[in-house]
Amino acid sequence: MKPLRIVSFGLGPIGIRAAALIAQKSSLELVGAIDIDPALAGKDLGAVVDAAGAAGVRIDSDARRVLEETKPDCVVHCTSSFIPNVREQLEVIIDCGANIITSTEEMLWPTLQQPEMTAELDARAKARGVSVLGTGVNPGFVMDTLPAFASSVCYDVRHVTCRRYVDATTRRLPFQKKIGAGMDEGEFRSLAQAGKLGHIGLRESIALLGAALGFDLDTIEQDVRPILATATKKTEYLEVPAGRVAGIHNTGFGAKNGKKLVEMDLRMYVGCEDPHDAFVFDSTPPFELRIPGGTSGDFATAAILVNGIQSVVAAAPGVRTMLDVAPPHLLR
Amino acid sequence: MKPLRIVSFGLGPIGIRAAALIAQKSSLELVGAIDIDPALAGKDLGAVVDAAGAAGVRIDSDARRVLEETKPDCVVHCTSSFIPNVREQLEVIIDCGANIITSTEEMLWPTLQQPEMTAELDARAKARGVSVLGTGVNPGFVMDTLPAFASSVCYDVRHVTCRRYVDATTRRLPFQKKIGAGMDEGEFRSLAQAGKLGHIGLRESIALLGAALGFDLDTIEQDVRPILATATKKTEYLEVPAGRVAGIHNTGFGAKNGKKLVEMDLRMYVGCEDPHDAFVFDSTPPFELRIPGGTSGDFATAAILVNGIQSVVAAAPGVRTMLDVAPPHLLR
Repeated sequence: MKPLRIVSFGLGPIGIRAAALIAQKSSLELVGAIDIDPALAGKDLGAVVDAAGAAGVRIDSDARRVLEETKPDCVVHCTSSFIPNVREQLEVIIDCGANIITSTEEMLWPTLQQPEMTAELDARAKARGVSVLGTGVNPGFVMDTLPAFASSVCYDVRHVTCRRYVDATTRRLPFQKKIGAGMDEGEFRSLAQAGKLGHIGLRESIALLGAALGFDLDTIEQDVRPILATATKKTEYLEVPAGRVAGIHNTGFGAKNGKKLVEMDLRMYVGCEDPHDAFVFDSTPPFELRIPGGTSGDFATAAILVNGIQSVVAAAPGVRTMLDVAPPHLLR
Repeated sequence: MKPLRIVSFGLGPIGIRAAALIAQKSSLELVGAIDIDPALAGKDLGAVVDAAGAAGVRIDSDARRVLEETKPDCVVHCTSSFIPNVREQLEVIIDCGANIITSTEEMLWPTLQQPEMTAELDARAKARGVSVLGTGVNPGFVMDTLPAFASSVCYDVRHVTCRRYVDATTRRLPFQKKIGAGMDEGEFRSLAQAGKLGHIGLRESIALLGAALGFDLDTIEQDVRPILATATKKTEYLEVPAGRVAGIHNTGFGAKNGKKLVEMDLRMYVGCEDPHDAFVFDSTPPFELRIPGGTSGDFATAAILVNGIQSVVAAAPGVRTMLDVAPPHLLR
């Protein structure tokens, strides 16, 4: 089969990993790269992402020009977490006739925050015959699509609890900063209140999983608290003295008529001693699942964005979710 | 949304459970039931499957008559493990314009045993605009589609081992007989050699998972051995004295150029003390997954056949696999 033609859009930490991975896949051909950072414009993608297979692709800040020149089958899009920030970018890609797989967390279940923009994007994508899919490891896999798929072997599911405990010790510095490692509690709380800290997408995970389980949720809430270090913890980049913030505890739930049906428990902190992903159904028959060690965050998001390309290319046109495209699997 | 109209075809142990489950789902309407057993013909399905929601549906042995009268959206088909045995049944259903979800183990990856029949069924289904899907818990979920989906969060997978250890102690008597519980070793080996014992579908699981991981396998082999009881074990139905057969150990592998890439280890026996499903990837990043207690066999196959109805109805026409339909999830 002819390789699919791919353009990378957005060369932040995830976009760079995704581009390097695309360059390794014989079923994919990296034909263009877009980033709005003027410092990157004109540079060779191979040097920026440190992958020989990406050499010869020049980074350009003009999305429309790249897309019209390269006519890709699919764009791997990693620029922002929020739909209003990416809307125009997605419109340009759709208008150029390319499918889209995006790390934009709100696009996992886009009707939750932006039902009108989603309806417009959906109509636009259908008119142009292309599909748009939001995914990632979290949101996108461990706390939503994986338990959704597992529910297929159950007669009934009455309640689900998902846990994800991540040890931030060996993660990259921006990740350690994102979870507040090293801050004092007051600083953490004011940043968290301003929405400048923490994980994005827990609400979307709850919405997707609630829909998959047919819960018809009327309430989705979340809360962010600091996890304080009980002893001094060191990483390659920073030190967390006892009493300061080691990381974040993000909880959330989906409820119907005051009854919690979906509960989420996400902890990401320096010094986590039992990292794992897990979920437990209150179900017939009983079912629980555990991923010892947990699913590697940075790698896994880049991987599912790239491995998911075939699913979005094969999907019916429109804004899709992980519940209505074929399950991604390893692409070679 | 209007409920999907469903016909049950085949009322053996799995078919009965599936029919009872369909009757509970508000998104599904049980409109007909087919079984070739003359003892069942004319009986009320509600009485046979012991489900009030199935009452009023008369069991009929004439498939074409039922399908022409009821015009179902989908048929849940549970009659035989082998494609040659079900081929004519599937053709009648396709010709009547209904989608099919089937427990026929060989249909999980039908090109493995019957490439020509599969091509004919595929052409016939496409001409009639309907889809055909084989699934179940094993084959269909734990040792194939679930690890295939999990591979989406990996950069690369070099090898996979899947384990499923089932405690047969509390399973139904036909299951205990199927795994040889209580036999002497000689009887087990001669029945196993004649293909009259054991699990069907391990080759199909290997083929699906190998394809999902891009391994391009050239060899698929399996082996069946008895597990002997080391002490006397009792179930509700039978006793296994020490030294006699407690159950079955079914191993298999898929290889390329003499190198094993997919390995399967399936044990189903009376007295299994650590029942679980698990798989381990040799991968980047490392990944393993465990289902403590394991996925309940009888329930889970009926569940995924019923929960998968929406996926097969929404799929593109033709013979499909679990890799190219939307992942099933709980239907209400």
